[in-house]
Amino acid sequence: MEGILSANDQIASQNRQLLDQHGIRMINLMASPGSGKTSLILRTIEALRGRVRIGVIEGDIASSIDADRVAARAVPVVQINTGGQCHLDATMVSRALTRLPLEDLDVILVENVGNLVCPVDFHLGEGLNVVITSVPEGDDKPYKYPAMFLAVDAIVINKLDLLPYVHFDADSFCKLTTGMNHDVRIFRVSCETGHGIAEWAKWIAQQRQPWVKKGQGVA
Amino acid sequence: MEGILSANDQIASQNRQLLDQHGIRMINLMASPGSGKTSLILRTIEALRGRVRIGVIEGDIASSIDADRVAARAVPVVQINTGGQCHLDATMVSRALTRLPLEDLDVILVENVGNLVCPVDFHLGEGLNVVITSVPEGDDKPYKYPAMFLAVDAIVINKLDLLPYVHFDADSFCKLTTGMNHDVRIFRVSCETGHGIAEWAKWIAQQRQPWVKKGQGVA
Repeated sequence: MEGILSANDQIASQNRQLLDQHGIRMINLMASPGSGKTSLILRTIEALRGRVRIGVIEGDIASSIDADRVAARAVPVVQINTGGQCHLDATMVSRALTRLPLEDLDVILVENVGNLVCPVDFHLGEGLNVVITSVPEGDDKPYKYPAMFLAVDAIVINKLDLLPYVHFDADSFCKLTTGMNHDVRIFRVSCETGHGIAEWAKWIAQQRQPWVKKGQGVA
Repeated sequence: MEGILSANDQIASQNRQLLDQHGIRMINLMASPGSGKTSLILRTIEALRGRVRIGVIEGDIASSIDADRVAARAVPVVQINTGGQCHLDATMVSRALTRLPLEDLDVILVENVGNLVCPVDFHLGEGLNVVITSVPEGDDKPYKYPAMFLAVDAIVINKLDLLPYVHFDADSFCKLTTGMNHDVRIFRVSCETGHGIAEWAKWIAQQRQPWVKKGQGVA
């Protein structure tokens, strides 16, 4: 297992180098199945259209439903089918990167396989890690999946529109997660209504690598 | 990997033998995080109190929140913390079985780690496999996690009370899943309102091993 992780880390590091050369920030989006990863990607694309050039890598065990939804927004997208594997790995992402127009991108959003456990251990070359958690899942997930909530730079609480109908104490959730992970950013959004998307999209825009200007050479 | 699975299968088979000797049916409940596994277990316990003697094995990466909730119902329960592992395995369950009063049980409900991928490959000695999917997760999960929906004997659609607020076509979902898995039983429930629990609990009661009468010897 350690050997696999170390080999993965090497390829992740190569991916990161390639992305750095192109001034691209890659963001690894992780979540349970059905938390709204694809919906958040679609909302982000719309919010940043004309300002940030976004590419997408869609990871799924099977099917191309998500990639089809993204492609319909005229955004470069590559679908990875893991064929049973419960997480993306750096090799899969390295192949996907060869199929994206890196010269024309500022940010790559990676939708990992829906899983709160396994993706944490596999770096992909990402610059940032984000977990999406949705209100109907309940506010106890950080107790049960601590490694995920410790590993991320940001938490997106999605499906805020369902708050009146389920038990989810957003304030205790935020207190718990910032207690575990002091620097974590938390965004409260609803991909259904658009609530909170502007703030999230602004943060994503700020994650662009500012020191590289495309077409102007690299210092 | 094959070696690990084969070793696991051997221990699963020993678990199954032990359970058969005691006339116990073990039911492996799998789901995404936050689909309502624990809530369904609590509803089942209440619905079958005085009729079916239930024990519970709670699997989580960390914490004992779920086991505490079950124990409050005065039901024998063992918490397994996998310490990072993304699924239960037969060895963990074999240890848990030594801590349950097998002489006094008809059914053991096992709550697996919240994960739609990894638990499928690891038999525990269970007699039945069930996946719980919840309405807010969306109706496309069988496309994305086909192995899970192919492996189970029953599907519980939970959080039916949220149907007015989210996009979930229950009829297409049922058509899709029965198309993939012809013999699968589907239950539509809400652990919040209690809707559909009676029918589910009746089915669980029918799963008891009818050929073993406790205290009367085995034919």
